[in-house]
Amino acid sequence: MATDSIDLQEIYQFAIQLAKDAGRLILEGSSKRTQSAATTQDPDTKKNRVDLVTETDQAVEAFIKRSIADKYPSFKFIGEESFAGGERVDLTDEPTFIVDPIDGTTNFVHAIDFVCCSIGFTFKQEPVIGVIYNPFLDKLYSALQGHGAYLNQTTRLPLTHPNPPPLPSLGDAVIGVEWGSDRSKAVIEKKGRTYMKLAADGKDVEGGVMAHSLRSIGSAALNYSMVAAGQLDLYWEIGCWSWDVCAGTIIAHEAGGKVYGKGGKPWHPQDLMGHHFFVVRAIADTPGGETGEQAQDRIAKEFFQVAEEWDV
Amino acid sequence: MATDSIDLQEIYQFAIQLAKDAGRLILEGSSKRTQSAATTQDPDTKKNRVDLVTETDQAVEAFIKRSIADKYPSFKFIGEESFAGGERVDLTDEPTFIVDPIDGTTNFVHAIDFVCCSIGFTFKQEPVIGVIYNPFLDKLYSALQGHGAYLNQTTRLPLTHPNPPPLPSLGDAVIGVEWGSDRSKAVIEKKGRTYMKLAADGKDVEGGVMAHSLRSIGSAALNYSMVAAGQLDLYWEIGCWSWDVCAGTIIAHEAGGKVYGKGGKPWHPQDLMGHHFFVVRAIADTPGGETGEQAQDRIAKEFFQVAEEWDV
Repeated sequence: MATDSIDLQEIYQFAIQLAKDAGRLILEGSSKRTQSAATTQDPDTKKNRVDLVTETDQAVEAFIKRSIADKYPSFKFIGEESFAGGERVDLTDEPTFIVDPIDGTTNFVHAIDFVCCSIGFTFKQEPVIGVIYNPFLDKLYSALQGHGAYLNQTTRLPLTHPNPPPLPSLGDAVIGVEWGSDRSKAVIEKKGRTYMKLAADGKDVEGGVMAHSLRSIGSAALNYSMVAAGQLDLYWEIGCWSWDVCAGTIIAHEAGGKVYGKGGKPWHPQDLMGHHFFVVRAIADTPGGETGEQAQDRIAKEFFQVAEEWDV
Repeated sequence: MATDSIDLQEIYQFAIQLAKDAGRLILEGSSKRTQSAATTQDPDTKKNRVDLVTETDQAVEAFIKRSIADKYPSFKFIGEESFAGGERVDLTDEPTFIVDPIDGTTNFVHAIDFVCCSIGFTFKQEPVIGVIYNPFLDKLYSALQGHGAYLNQTTRLPLTHPNPPPLPSLGDAVIGVEWGSDRSKAVIEKKGRTYMKLAADGKDVEGGVMAHSLRSIGSAALNYSMVAAGQLDLYWEIGCWSWDVCAGTIIAHEAGGKVYGKGGKPWHPQDLMGHHFFVVRAIADTPGGETGEQAQDRIAKEFFQVAEEWDV
């Protein structure tokens, strides 16, 4: 398919409307969810009881997939629930929607407000459109490559645009981290030791960063959105999937953030299909000093001196 | 002061209006905050750079203190900023407002939405009124002893009222935890090991709970609010103060939650002035089986088999 045969602006508007419609379905589904909130019996288990699947998840993905197929029958589709159902679609140069119908499923099951629909779109393997919509808080984060990132289509991101604050050191950061769904000893110990080092006072613990704080809100896509907004300074994740981060990647990028591959290495398109993610918010250039990107790289370097990684 | 000489309904309505007015001041202050978001230079440091103090904090507390003194000149006042300024007021049987002007100060400084004003009121040393208002998300949690807890004055809490779901085990819980401001090795290691055990798979780690997940949102008062709403199943905190939890204690209690003292022991009024807090959400009675309160006690017992505590 030639570059000029797709209308990115049109697809962008379509994706925004699609996320809003999906948000309505999520809200409708939320009333059914309450009674099974704290039981493991009701929701089917996928990987384990942390990784809860609900009917709504599947219904929302089916709606999104059908809507895309109606409008853009030649486009490819990668979705969390389709994947869980055995569908394997490789990332190619073709126009491809990459969708998580409900990111923050555990939150959804427990009626916590940090839930979103994440709709990403790649062309030539690069995320070029992203829409993340939290229907409970009515917050829509979106971006089209080259056109900036927005909250609710009007507020340019980061919220401090065009003057993001400096970030003198990792110790000045609020860091998004999650406990995730892989609860094996090896992974939890690596995560736990990393979080403890990020939190600990460096006077007391060798290598202690004493970051301003760590936050865990339970949605990868919303963590990316908060980095795009400049609310989180950075977010680190190992083990999630392309549908969790595709939309967030372009939204964070268009908001001046920088995404990295495994271990803080430069981002390559194939990293989207991997499971190692790291993103730093927009940072201002220092007049006569380092650029914002140099500052992002400095923070990434500081971070990966502390973080213990593992293969997924 | 005799019991019948105070009008709790009137004080409750006053506290609600006061929290809303304080919320407006917080929103006004938020525009000033953005530029100093990621620097340690601007906000004065109190204990360390995690425990950020802003001008707005002090201005909001001064407003609340003055408003209370105007309306109820004989009432006592305990507030975070007054305490930080050296004012020591013991908890007595007298009517006493216990106030945190901005709970979630680090969030406030970083423009994260999880920020609230927390206004508690005790009589005969017991929290009897609580109002927690998040002006960014326009969510007001409130309770008057014996009259239930509400979201935005209309939605009874928990959100599942009158049928809170069961909670079969600690493994079914979403648990609120925080990294806090004491970043010493001893404290961070106890917290970190506790969180790792809560997260870890019990097949792999001895005593591993594999809770549904852990959340860290950065505000004690909002953690209590989320337990009251039934969104978090429980919340554990060591090291925070009466102003962080006074309002939350009565709100959670009126929402059917149960608060505990140190180590999960039965709550005594003097625990409010301590630094060990634990609260479990409302749980339904099992027909012909355990009561909701027995279930709460069971969860508390499970929790303190895992949690490592320390003295503050």
